[in-house]
Amino acid sequence: TNSMLSGLPTTIFSVMSALAAEHGAINLGQGFPDTEGPVDLVEAAAAALRDGRNQYPPLTGVPELRRAVARSNARFYGISVDPNREVVVTCGATEAITASLMALVNRGDEVVVFEPLYDTYLPVLEMLGAVVRTVRLAPPHWDLPRATLAAAFSPRTKAVLLNTPMNPTGKVFTRDELEFIAGLLARHDAYAVCDEVYEHLTFAPVRHQPLMALPGMRERTIRIGSAGKSFSMTGWKVGYVTAPAPLADLVAKAHQLLTFTVAPNLQRAVALGLDKDTAYFERLAEGMRSARDWLAEGLVRAGFDVLPCDGSYFLIADITPLGFRGGDVAFCQQMVRDGGVAAIPVSAFYDPRGQNIPDSYVRFAFCKKTGVIASAIQRLQTVR
Amino acid sequence: TNSMLSGLPTTIFSVMSALAAEHGAINLGQGFPDTEGPVDLVEAAAAALRDGRNQYPPLTGVPELRRAVARSNARFYGISVDPNREVVVTCGATEAITASLMALVNRGDEVVVFEPLYDTYLPVLEMLGAVVRTVRLAPPHWDLPRATLAAAFSPRTKAVLLNTPMNPTGKVFTRDELEFIAGLLARHDAYAVCDEVYEHLTFAPVRHQPLMALPGMRERTIRIGSAGKSFSMTGWKVGYVTAPAPLADLVAKAHQLLTFTVAPNLQRAVALGLDKDTAYFERLAEGMRSARDWLAEGLVRAGFDVLPCDGSYFLIADITPLGFRGGDVAFCQQMVRDGGVAAIPVSAFYDPRGQNIPDSYVRFAFCKKTGVIASAIQRLQTVR
Ligand SMILES: CSCCC(=O)C(=O)O
Ligand SMILES: CSCCC(=O)C(=O)O
Repeated sequence: TNSMLSGLPTTIFSVMSALAAEHGAINLGQGFPDTEGPVDLVEAAAAALRDGRNQYPPLTGVPELRRAVARSNARFYGISVDPNREVVVTCGATEAITASLMALVNRGDEVVVFEPLYDTYLPVLEMLGAVVRTVRLAPPHWDLPRATLAAAFSPRTKAVLLNTPMNPTGKVFTRDELEFIAGLLARHDAYAVCDEVYEHLTFAPVRHQPLMALPGMRERTIRIGSAGKSFSMTGWKVGYVTAPAPLADLVAKAHQLLTFTVAPNLQRAVALGLDKDTAYFERLAEGMRSARDWLAEGLVRAGFDVLPCDGSYFLIADITPLGFRGGDVAFCQQMVRDGGVAAIPVSAFYDPRGQNIPDSYVRFAFCKKTGVIASAIQRLQTVR
Repeated sequence: TNSMLSGLPTTIFSVMSALAAEHGAINLGQGFPDTEGPVDLVEAAAAALRDGRNQYPPLTGVPELRRAVARSNARFYGISVDPNREVVVTCGATEAITASLMALVNRGDEVVVFEPLYDTYLPVLEMLGAVVRTVRLAPPHWDLPRATLAAAFSPRTKAVLLNTPMNPTGKVFTRDELEFIAGLLARHDAYAVCDEVYEHLTFAPVRHQPLMALPGMRERTIRIGSAGKSFSMTGWKVGYVTAPAPLADLVAKAHQLLTFTVAPNLQRAVALGLDKDTAYFERLAEGMRSARDWLAEGLVRAGFDVLPCDGSYFLIADITPLGFRGGDVAFCQQMVRDGGVAAIPVSAFYDPRGQNIPDSYVRFAFCKKTGVIASAIQRLQTVR
């Protein structure tokens, strides 16, 4: 059997969700909203089941959704996209990331990633035989270490895998940082895979900027969005890739080998979602910002240090002031068991083979109802 | 960019569906029914969107569906399955096949496949670095060439990839053939990945038998089913893997890297489908058998030789009696353009690097309304 997969631990997200259920804990671990997305999308998805379009849609997605993805690129970022040749709909951003890396990488190619990182990145790159160059961002600000990044590039660099807004840090890469990355990509004739699933979840005055929108980057960038995150339906598993036609063609071929296509009724509902007015996206981000504030204030009251967070579903808290010894993993185990709150140890977002992995950070999801966050805070204060 | 994918032609299914649309042809190419599946499943899928379960379901699938898959294994084949540890729900059988191969294969492992074969098998195996041993079945009966198969096994054989009922041939492997394969697997301590998406589409008196149900095979077999095929909703993309727990665990890890999970509302509808009474499955197969007979008779009247077909959506016709020179690809191109009927050249199901690929066979899908099949036959007779 496959040795890489045999060595892969069960994903921390499933482990902590199972522990949360077992202990009746409030689940601030796995990143999913505890309220449903817009009712009109639910109704559109239900209606779209009923008009005789339940057979294979086109490989790259239904035309309605591909056009909506193109419009959304234009509206939010001024990126002009051919819906027929530059968009591929995938079974969630997870498939989009895997398919994009498959499209770019040959065995032995180098890929630059930023740590902390999402837990599918490294095993997928290992499966593809990529040589991974890891660049660590340092807490609490997670600024881009420019010299280290420049040194991570080589003549064999094929791509950078960039996640902004970033999970688990809540960092949103700045224009300056993106320009620096763009310069390196141009100089080394490399590509970027941009996991931008939290694109609509940034907190004013910070705004998401896609690397793809920077001068010279249009032809080098694969940009990934997620209906699950933008419409609070994480179970729908509808992702979308925007890429220049030659790359989109390869992503589509990878998609053909991985899933072939995506349920048409969900695609059609998501198309309506992408056309929602700006107020919808503003309210989504504003609600999330206020949840972040609630959680951050509560964590501070409970004795944590809270790191800055400009976007995503997540913020990171430092447990050092609590005086707990034993590291973030033990802390999270104790917190779910005795405190009744589940969160994710940030060390789970590091390559386990690495040295000096920070172990005093815990990731809390705030994509939850105010009352749920309040209860979690209350539990944490009681424990303390 | 990835050289394997760059070299991969656009899938013949999309090519022919596009040509069919362009020429207003009747599409007997890509295998999808032109009628929708059961209305109660559509309604169940719609209702399941509305009760607040649109966030991530468990990685391996919703419990309802895992239990239904277990019940279905017991009811149809007497296979007893632990729904918590031996079932993984995937984004269609395409993902199931890729994830199963990922779970088993290390680079350099040998995998035995039967030709003609489905068009994702070889590129996926190439991506995984498997060494492919191809065993060709010979028309018109596609009997298992036992000596050739035995010779294809070696100490490095990790798995056999078996498709029964088989696309494109309509062959259903016999008990005798399966026992021969089982003997080789046991002797070489190898696994089987069984693509059984047409399990409920066999034509009396022939019945599908899963390799997994044979003595000694329970622990060596990964069995793949498809809601798209069993419930005539090919767009839903819900597949299910049954495997012994240690293998199911690896399939789940591969699934985590490929898509993570599958839309819960569709999973819940499919769970109801699997519990349908035996009459449903009998009617499904009986309807398909009668469509096969319509198509076969019509093709004979139009001058083709028709090969035997005991299952699946497809039958193969030999164009030799028509006196056409130029091979199956040119024939299909001419037929879609001048005849107004799309079908798939069977040579597309062969490794293009192979020698002596048969080129007088064409695959027709009969998972279509009787009137559609009748019109297609009429068109073909006019052309002749
Ligand atoms: C796909 S499960 C994990 C969800 C998520 O993005 C996270 O919690 O980081
Ligand atoms: C997934 S597209 C191809 C459908 C099919 O199974 C076939 O036509 O062979």
